Amino acid sequence: MRAAAGLIVTVTALVVVASGALIRVFDHQEYSSIWIGMWWALQTVTTVGYGDIVPKHLSGRIVGAVVMLQGVAFVTVFTALITSIFVARAARERAVDDQEREEVELRHVFERLGSIERMVDTLVRGDSTPSED
Amino acid sequence: MRAAAGLIVTVTALVVVASGALIRVFDHQEYSSIWIGMWWALQTVTTVGYGDIVPKHLSGRIVGAVVMLQGVAFVTVFTALITSIFVARAARERAVDDQEREEVELRHVFERLGSIERMVDTLVRGDSTPSED
Amino acid sequence: MRAAAGLIVTVTALVVVASGALIRVFDHQEYSSIWIGMWWALQTVTTVGYGDIVPKHLSGRIVGAVVMLQGVAFVTVFTALITSIFVARAARERAVDDQEREEVELRHVFERLGSIERMVDTLVRGDSTPSED
Amino acid sequence: MRAAAGLIVTVTALVVVASGALIRVFDHQEYSSIWIGMWWALQTVTTVGYGDIVPKHLSGRIVGAVVMLQGVAFVTVFTALITSIFVARAARERAVDDQEREEVELRHVFERLGSIERMVDTLVRGDSTPSED
Repeated sequence: MRAAAGLIVTVTALVVVASGALIRVFDHQEYSSIWIGMWWALQTVTTVGYGDIVPKHLSGRIVGAVVMLQGVAFVTVFTALITSIFVARAARERAVDDQEREEVELRHVFERLGSIERMVDTLVRGDSTPSED
Repeated sequence: MRAAAGLIVTVTALVVVASGALIRVFDHQEYSSIWIGMWWALQTVTTVGYGDIVPKHLSGRIVGAVVMLQGVAFVTVFTALITSIFVARAARERAVDDQEREEVELRHVFERLGSIERMVDTLVRGDSTPSED
Repeated sequence: MRAAAGLIVTVTALVVVASGALIRVFDHQEYSSIWIGMWWALQTVTTVGYGDIVPKHLSGRIVGAVVMLQGVAFVTVFTALITSIFVARAARERAVDDQEREEVELRHVFERLGSIERMVDTLVRGDSTPSED
Repeated sequence: MRAAAGLIVTVTALVVVASGALIRVFDHQEYSSIWIGMWWALQTVTTVGYGDIVPKHLSGRIVGAVVMLQGVAFVTVFTALITSIFVARAARERAVDDQEREEVELRHVFERLGSIERMVDTLVRGDSTPSED
């Protein structure tokens, strides 16, 4: 899970850098440098979307569409990963409590079984000794 | 769950295409083509909202309201679906461990019960054989 | 949970309507009608934020801050509610499987206990009958 | 969990206040006061992003990048925390039901063990009394 969280963060960072460079190439009238491209890509992937610099050409808008979808994928999958890490931790704590309770119950069952065993054992010995007399 | 995730993605894609066409019809002064309509719809459904092209007429804004709400529905339900898939997978792994532990415990209970059974069986046979003597 | 989801939707809808009216009062130069106020409030609460109409006065911006925070509260709590409904449903299905497996195991334990009981019962009757002879 | 939720809210509030002040210093042509800086920071951290006031200098955009990333961190971690609180509550309720069912089953096992014990006890006494005769 932690590895998957690292993977989605890395992929998203790569999408920001790559789309920042691509949008500079495709929409160079709007984007005067790669740094402005990355400023726009970060706004887009985080779904902030100020709209101070926006792609005007079709090719730039297709790059924009990919970054927007990556933004939604990032937020949903990252939220899901963190949530499942938190839920699993809480479940593991409950499982430890459950296991302890179960072990106490089992110990009681084994004590009762042991008591029966000893009584039957007494009978077995008692049965055999009189017959030896 | 995976089917539900596919369904919400499909519905959202249809909303983007349909609202892109509808906004072109309702707000044709702002939206010069269906492609610009879909560019706006994708910005809206992902909650990026650059604001480079925005509906001006009431009918266009009603379409916008539907797309915004679909955007929130998409992000929340999609996050919930992915999260529950991740949580269920983690729970299934824990359940396998639990089941193995439980089987070990049960085997011990059955061994003790088997031991008692054999001892009582000895008694039953031992009881009947002397009486036959 | 479903009641809580209904509550947060209702509260959010009320915030949109109320803030749409309030922003018209506080920032009436920017907002020419309550409908434009509600169009802005919906953009804000869904975190789309086109920026086509934005509060300029401090009082309007305070209303805006409340709507933004309500937007984040809505998305986070609504996502959490739907997720916990989905997770609980999956957990309930797993619990049914667990319970069935447990019942099969318990039935085996009871069969073994019943077999021991019958054997001991034979001994009790066998012990008493010879002594009556 | 509730402490962690309080922590992330506090950190986010501090980021809004600090970045509102910092952006005033770094981009003082765009930001005429700290209040406008905080209005921009709140828009950014909630991912609303109207774009009415946007940093123009590189230093201001670096502050903006930090606030955007804090916004995504806030929404994802806060959603994860609330979700895990809701899921844990539902799981605890199911656990109480499970425990009750388990206790009923265990009581049956102990009743059967008790019955076997009493029968074996009768045998032990029955075995010893005839031998005293």
